Amino acid sequence: MASEPTLSASNESISQTEPPPPVERFKYSDRVFLRSILGRADGGKGLAGQRVLVGGWVKSGVEKQKPGVPSSMSPGAAAHPVVKDVTCSEVLINRLPILRSIARILTGGGCNALSLWKPDGPAKPVTTVGYLRISDGSCAANLQVVVDSSLHPLSQILPTGTSILVEGVIAIPKAPGKYTVELEAEKVLYVGGVDADKYPLSKGLLSKAFLRAYPHLRPRTSMVASIARIRNSLSHSTHQFFQSNGFLNVQMPIITTTNLRNQNKMFEVSILSSKADDSLRLAAINDQEAKTLETIKAAIKEKSKRIEELKRSNSNKEALLTALQDLQKANELEHKHTSILTKSKKEDFSENFFGRQAYLSSSTQLHLESYACSLGCVYSFGPTFQVEDVQPSKSLAESWKVDVELAFAKLEDAMNCAEDFLRYLCHSIIEHCPHDIQFMYKRIDNKCIDRIKSMGSSPFARISYTDAVEILNKRFEEKVEWGKILSREHESILADEIYGRPVIIYDHPKDSKPFYLRVRDDFKTVSAFDIIAPKTGKLVQGGQKEERLDKLIERGRKLGLVQEDYDWYLDLRRHGTVQHSGFSAGLEEIVMFVTGLDDIRDAIPFPRNRGSADT
Amino acid sequence: MASEPTLSASNESISQTEPPPPVERFKYSDRVFLRSILGRADGGKGLAGQRVLVGGWVKSGVEKQKPGVPSSMSPGAAAHPVVKDVTCSEVLINRLPILRSIARILTGGGCNALSLWKPDGPAKPVTTVGYLRISDGSCAANLQVVVDSSLHPLSQILPTGTSILVEGVIAIPKAPGKYTVELEAEKVLYVGGVDADKYPLSKGLLSKAFLRAYPHLRPRTSMVASIARIRNSLSHSTHQFFQSNGFLNVQMPIITTTNLRNQNKMFEVSILSSKADDSLRLAAINDQEAKTLETIKAAIKEKSKRIEELKRSNSNKEALLTALQDLQKANELEHKHTSILTKSKKEDFSENFFGRQAYLSSSTQLHLESYACSLGCVYSFGPTFQVEDVQPSKSLAESWKVDVELAFAKLEDAMNCAEDFLRYLCHSIIEHCPHDIQFMYKRIDNKCIDRIKSMGSSPFARISYTDAVEILNKRFEEKVEWGKILSREHESILADEIYGRPVIIYDHPKDSKPFYLRVRDDFKTVSAFDIIAPKTGKLVQGGQKEERLDKLIERGRKLGLVQEDYDWYLDLRRHGTVQHSGFSAGLEEIVMFVTGLDDIRDAIPFPRNRGSADT
Repeated sequence: MASEPTLSASNESISQTEPPPPVERFKYSDRVFLRSILGRADGGKGLAGQRVLVGGWVKSGVEKQKPGVPSSMSPGAAAHPVVKDVTCSEVLINRLPILRSIARILTGGGCNALSLWKPDGPAKPVTTVGYLRISDGSCAANLQVVVDSSLHPLSQILPTGTSILVEGVIAIPKAPGKYTVELEAEKVLYVGGVDADKYPLSKGLLSKAFLRAYPHLRPRTSMVASIARIRNSLSHSTHQFFQSNGFLNVQMPIITTTNLRNQNKMFEVSILSSKADDSLRLAAINDQEAKTLETIKAAIKEKSKRIEELKRSNSNKEALLTALQDLQKANELEHKHTSILTKSKKEDFSENFFGRQAYLSSSTQLHLESYACSLGCVYSFGPTFQVEDVQPSKSLAESWKVDVELAFAKLEDAMNCAEDFLRYLCHSIIEHCPHDIQFMYKRIDNKCIDRIKSMGSSPFARISYTDAVEILNKRFEEKVEWGKILSREHESILADEIYGRPVIIYDHPKDSKPFYLRVRDDFKTVSAFDIIAPKTGKLVQGGQKEERLDKLIERGRKLGLVQEDYDWYLDLRRHGTVQHSGFSAGLEEIVMFVTGLDDIRDAIPFPRNRGSADT
Repeated sequence: MASEPTLSASNESISQTEPPPPVERFKYSDRVFLRSILGRADGGKGLAGQRVLVGGWVKSGVEKQKPGVPSSMSPGAAAHPVVKDVTCSEVLINRLPILRSIARILTGGGCNALSLWKPDGPAKPVTTVGYLRISDGSCAANLQVVVDSSLHPLSQILPTGTSILVEGVIAIPKAPGKYTVELEAEKVLYVGGVDADKYPLSKGLLSKAFLRAYPHLRPRTSMVASIARIRNSLSHSTHQFFQSNGFLNVQMPIITTTNLRNQNKMFEVSILSSKADDSLRLAAINDQEAKTLETIKAAIKEKSKRIEELKRSNSNKEALLTALQDLQKANELEHKHTSILTKSKKEDFSENFFGRQAYLSSSTQLHLESYACSLGCVYSFGPTFQVEDVQPSKSLAESWKVDVELAFAKLEDAMNCAEDFLRYLCHSIIEHCPHDIQFMYKRIDNKCIDRIKSMGSSPFARISYTDAVEILNKRFEEKVEWGKILSREHESILADEIYGRPVIIYDHPKDSKPFYLRVRDDFKTVSAFDIIAPKTGKLVQGGQKEERLDKLIERGRKLGLVQEDYDWYLDLRRHGTVQHSGFSAGLEEIVMFVTGLDDIRDAIPFPRNRGSADT
């Protein structure tokens, strides 16, 4: 019974006149992705008998005695050194897969070939078998690879993390177990070894915090690999959604001189050396200049005094002239040295690459508007940068954002688009990454599937900020003051408890949102909106932009912004302005919503935070 | 004859029992993209009679006398002020589109309705008509919108750059001309005005150099809009190609502390204030510390002398003890102040956000390898940064790159993948952007279509670097020295003249390529490759990476790299190393190849270069 599946499968493939369709091969090497085998509806069963080349990393490996060897030899046999003294027929059988296949068919496939060929040998040569569970990153499932010790020294391929490229035949396991198919290795073509004592990921289940210390190795774990595939799928679905709806992807600049968040710190970019040496050198120059200037000033004072004396005595005109010329020269020298000192004391950005202070952009929205005000509907998808000193688990210095802008569109248009976008992501992630989502469900968050499905199926709740405050105040004694930004806790009460689904909160108090959002007729609120999701909180922020030049200038002035810093942005209102709306969504936050991860550093391949950019 | 098309079209739509399929509307506003009308195979003809809302920017506008007004009034009539004193029936006709349509049908559609209703009025009221050519960015074609002056003051909507949101009926133009269809405006819903004197893009054809000064407005020109759509299409096709071939998109970090190009400058990132004030303050502290230290040292010397004296005199033990304690305190003080000074004089990167010097990544390749050595086949697509001081037309400080990495893959696999990638882009750009490519063909480069088709159809030439040198040396007296990097001119001779198609040059001299490329058995060359395209030159650089730990360390050491700076990268070889290969392609270079643009600053929305990041 145990060997039945193998038998019937190989019988099938022999008796059928039509050979099964060949396994899908990767186009750019002879390799077959494990997904092409294990990702099939039949788990790869229909591919039994096909010869494939697979490559991957060992998740775990065990050495066992070869099946069919008498049980007396079983316990501990795996640990014994393998007897190398094998007969010629054994070599033939082990090395020539075709012979082995024939032998298997002749014996009914159940027991191993050796027992047929050498039933009575006095000194039974024992080869052991390695059972490797390997992963190649193409799917959540692992493939069991069965490697005969005669093919390669098992000690070299068993350790976790070993890379292996192996050719073999897809087979139904002889003993029923967790695997639908396994690979019977015939050739080990490449091995990249691991020293188990030195490999940081040798141990079994590792904490997410431990793995964060090895961002370059952690995608070898099942969890981080699943997150990477989910992130890939969400990224691609993002493009698919916007492209299929007629949006154009435009790449916005990272380096910017437009700093409109003058109240917040930003990262500065320079090629000025930041070495203290340089500042010391500069300071020394300044010091010397200051001393020279003092000397010159003293000399001028002296010379002026002498001139006064000469004038009073009215004696020697020749001497007075010489003295005056002398003073003139001293004055010129003073002027020159004063300007040197002033210049070097000023922020000398002319020395900077970009001619002025440049920053890493914290949002591509402003630049994106210029393309929306030309091309209609656009989106950008790239990194943005924030200097934030909140908990590292909650924010990143470098994070990926989707920014979207629609011309000739009002607040509601942007809200509809953002809601559809999130729902599209939910539908597509369930469709494209079912096994990875299943993995997160089992290992991280057993509510993630419900959450994704719920977002994908029911419309989001929509309430104004003012209503949100009222609802919260009805529930709690400690009142929320109108005008204050809702806290993470308030948002959670609305999305997780009151509505139990995503909530769009719109029309926020003017001062709680960026200055470029459109002021509403009440002069107190702006056409902004946030989408708050259960568990994760804010996934989207957006709004209708202020298209009226005078209103925008007025708000900028009140905030103390320097108009010339964003005059190009005002141009969009000066020349052919349009009503336009948009939003911004954080990829990491969406990954967290989908996976149930609590720490944002696990939602991005290489997290950047205070004190943390080492790898 | 002139009015025939309108008539027959409207007759058709009336006589047919099946109404034509409604025009495709944009999902997130009531607007219809011009592409949905003009991008159809019939140029929109089949949509005649449908009411739509379109929004866009005026490319050009002219005011004309209304067709059908007696020719005696024609010359100059458009310039006359419109007579506002209109009769009730006129108002009805002008404001109620349905009445106008009925009138048109009744009169045979040829002449305007007014002539039927008011044939003999003594003071004929004249309305003029505005013909606007508008673009909404969704396609290369413009739509002619016909606006009756009674709908909106024409002077406000005619200037180039005006934004307009207008409702109207798609119609076949009464007079045959360049337009298949036009929009007969019925309501002007929104106008964003332009002061023609102040709008920089008011004049007709503007040079690319002029437009570069207005990166936020230039996408309103047909050329820059076409480039943006081509760039969008190439970006999306990039994702499509890799996703459909099983690659995972992983987002790699921009901020990095791994600086392996120690010979080149990199952009530094900091939140240390770069204000000269700060350096002065630091220098002042150092200065003061140095003075304090001098005083302390002098005191120590004095105290030591006194102790020697006390010892010699052997007189007062009490005094000696006090003196020794005093000296001890002075020594402690010296130690403290020395350490303060040393610390402040060192590069104090502990003050820096990331705890050490951080840079903008010039390549995501190294980080990408870590994901390839876990997940198999991966790509990243994002901005990279180079401090280069060559001509600004040839290189950018910030440019978009596709980086690709394949595990278990050799040089040839990466070459095949890169070639297929470029060919895929060529096929898809012709398919998805035919009108934009046609536009570039007419306006920029009349060889671009041939070049794209040729790349898409014939296999690339492949020669080793050594053969390339030999070929070039056969042709020229001035010999190319083996080992030198081929110049742009050499590459052009190979791709443009000798082969007339893209050329892959592989196996370059070791020292001409990055240290992480795999050393070949000759110890002189590495498994690198470049793809050189006609006209544009290098589109792709790639190679097989050095997977052998000892070889990699050796090469790094020879280049003087500090091992701890990239030790994490060596980990990929220490633990389960694999043969892996990859390549990098510049999006801007591909845009230039496809469009025929000569200046790289025109191939990216907001170019960043020395002295240029103002918008």
